[in-house]
Amino acid sequence: MNKNRIDRIHKKMKEKGVTQIIVTDPLAIFYITGKKINPGERLLALYINIKGDLKLIINELFPQETTDGLEFVWYNDVQNGVEVLSKHITEEKVIGIDKLWPAGFLLKLQEIMPDKKYINSSLLIDEIRKIKDEDEQSRMRESSLLNDAVMRDVIPWVTKGLSEIELSDKVKEIYAKHGIKEYSFEPITAYAKGAADPHHEPDDSFGKHGDCVILDIGGMHKDYASDMTRTVFIGEVNDRQREIYEIVKKAQALGIEAAKPGNRMCDVDAACRDYIESKGFGKYFTHRTGHSIGLEAHEYGDVSSSNESVIEVGQCFSIEPGIYIEEEGIGVRIEDLVLITESGCEVLNKVTKDLIVVED
Amino acid sequence: MNKNRIDRIHKKMKEKGVTQIIVTDPLAIFYITGKKINPGERLLALYINIKGDLKLIINELFPQETTDGLEFVWYNDVQNGVEVLSKHITEEKVIGIDKLWPAGFLLKLQEIMPDKKYINSSLLIDEIRKIKDEDEQSRMRESSLLNDAVMRDVIPWVTKGLSEIELSDKVKEIYAKHGIKEYSFEPITAYAKGAADPHHEPDDSFGKHGDCVILDIGGMHKDYASDMTRTVFIGEVNDRQREIYEIVKKAQALGIEAAKPGNRMCDVDAACRDYIESKGFGKYFTHRTGHSIGLEAHEYGDVSSSNESVIEVGQCFSIEPGIYIEEEGIGVRIEDLVLITESGCEVLNKVTKDLIVVED
Repeated sequence: MNKNRIDRIHKKMKEKGVTQIIVTDPLAIFYITGKKINPGERLLALYINIKGDLKLIINELFPQETTDGLEFVWYNDVQNGVEVLSKHITEEKVIGIDKLWPAGFLLKLQEIMPDKKYINSSLLIDEIRKIKDEDEQSRMRESSLLNDAVMRDVIPWVTKGLSEIELSDKVKEIYAKHGIKEYSFEPITAYAKGAADPHHEPDDSFGKHGDCVILDIGGMHKDYASDMTRTVFIGEVNDRQREIYEIVKKAQALGIEAAKPGNRMCDVDAACRDYIESKGFGKYFTHRTGHSIGLEAHEYGDVSSSNESVIEVGQCFSIEPGIYIEEEGIGVRIEDLVLITESGCEVLNKVTKDLIVVED
Repeated sequence: MNKNRIDRIHKKMKEKGVTQIIVTDPLAIFYITGKKINPGERLLALYINIKGDLKLIINELFPQETTDGLEFVWYNDVQNGVEVLSKHITEEKVIGIDKLWPAGFLLKLQEIMPDKKYINSSLLIDEIRKIKDEDEQSRMRESSLLNDAVMRDVIPWVTKGLSEIELSDKVKEIYAKHGIKEYSFEPITAYAKGAADPHHEPDDSFGKHGDCVILDIGGMHKDYASDMTRTVFIGEVNDRQREIYEIVKKAQALGIEAAKPGNRMCDVDAACRDYIESKGFGKYFTHRTGHSIGLEAHEYGDVSSSNESVIEVGQCFSIEPGIYIEEEGIGVRIEDLVLITESGCEVLNKVTKDLIVVED
């Protein structure tokens, strides 16, 4: 149970004029209650209202230790969980619903309570999760420090004759050595042609002398995700590759400069994008600049031209511009996580961004 | 596109009096259209009506080859997918909704079309998927034959000094050797105490002389799942273990005998359960007897005392009675998949069920 987070939720509910919500995303429930429960296909719902009710409707198959301030409402497989839940909903007309709740449950609730007004209230929780508290900030820091250590161990392997898939497996092996068993996402390891496609998945290709190699990796540590990209070169780097690398590096640095309270998320995107465009590579930067991160690798709030929300202290997101030229087999992306502070941001990744050529 | 499956869906829709449905489960969409698409958080919806419309509302990020009989309705990230979908819904009042559709989409559709009646129509598709057609039957056979080969290779490893987790990893390695990269579920490998808990997950325990070992494994082959359990013994078996083993073996054989058209699913459960109860072990058989299987390891239609639906030709399910005595560290489960035929059933697994003692 995290009293502070509950208080922030109550405050936000009042701001938005919503008196009761149902949270069903297991990660959001974990965020609020500290209970990590995977209910599979069974109903798991946290009912919150501003009068102070905090009730977890949960199947008896998932026994839990009691927690101050959290009321458990148990049901079994003979009962209908949604019916049990409905008995705890107050007479107020509006009820907020988690956007991820499977429709089968919502339709059942609508059948039982046809006169309610059901609204999507996920944004309310997303906006609170977006601002990391101190405990979360220190977990994000630790997680990225570990990711740095893994990246440093991974880089020498790009010249060891592994296919992209084998190199991706090697990344997992190195994570395991650092005590990390879960990844933020499947490690992306891409040589030359693969690197030139920002949506490439590791395949049976091998790297060769002169190739760029994109390493985009992240692990889970104390429930929090890391995510970093470095692009390195095998044996040598030609002038064209170096030019592109330095443009991406500079663009990323400009993005970091723009990541501060008061600026908007789109300003960070523009800082990277405008510079890359000014160098004539605009059409090769084909994706948004970044995404929020925390309990999940991708959280609400992206770093894109369309996100005009103002940056706040405690936000954590990636800054990862790239240039991808398919016809030349060149792809460069550089990514760090940043944590917004009063004066700007703290860059959570410490692995050098100077151009690295790995001797082959 | 599978014309025959579409015809069966239309027929079922007419039976149930539903003129239009929205299918959103990617596996159900694959089942109907042959298109395997993972849309992540983006809307993917197959709109079906009995007049013959078959439209896939899909984001431009997921390009597809054209298919006869399937109309693609493309949208992009600037558009709202649900709005695009809503334009294709006919004026009829009732619309069937996939039980797995995230509520965020359903709430948006309800906002756009407040006067419709929304019902859960998943059962309609589930009941069709329950009956495997010839192509599916041959895939289920092949998948289980491969699982047999893997099980035979796995059994000798129970005496090689591996922990449960290491043995589970070994199972995956053996799957890879047989060309299988995806599993129906994480392999369950459990020695003695772990075997005595039917919900046990592999841990750091090791097996020792005289232990029973539960091996519950399944792989994905040509999109179809296998699932089989064998219980073997390390070095020797005592009279108590042998007694329990033979009771489970006989119960499972009785379940197979009861698996035929005209009987009900609960009759299969009763065949196993009654025998185990008659031998005095009823309270140690703590789970349902089995589950349907196909594109997923667990599909609609379980083999339990509460499922009174009549068994039909083409159904495929597991029969897996077990006895678990925690205080004695004994657990035995035997599981095969069966495919219902005109005259009874075909047992898809061929690995012997005679008691196996692996020499240590």
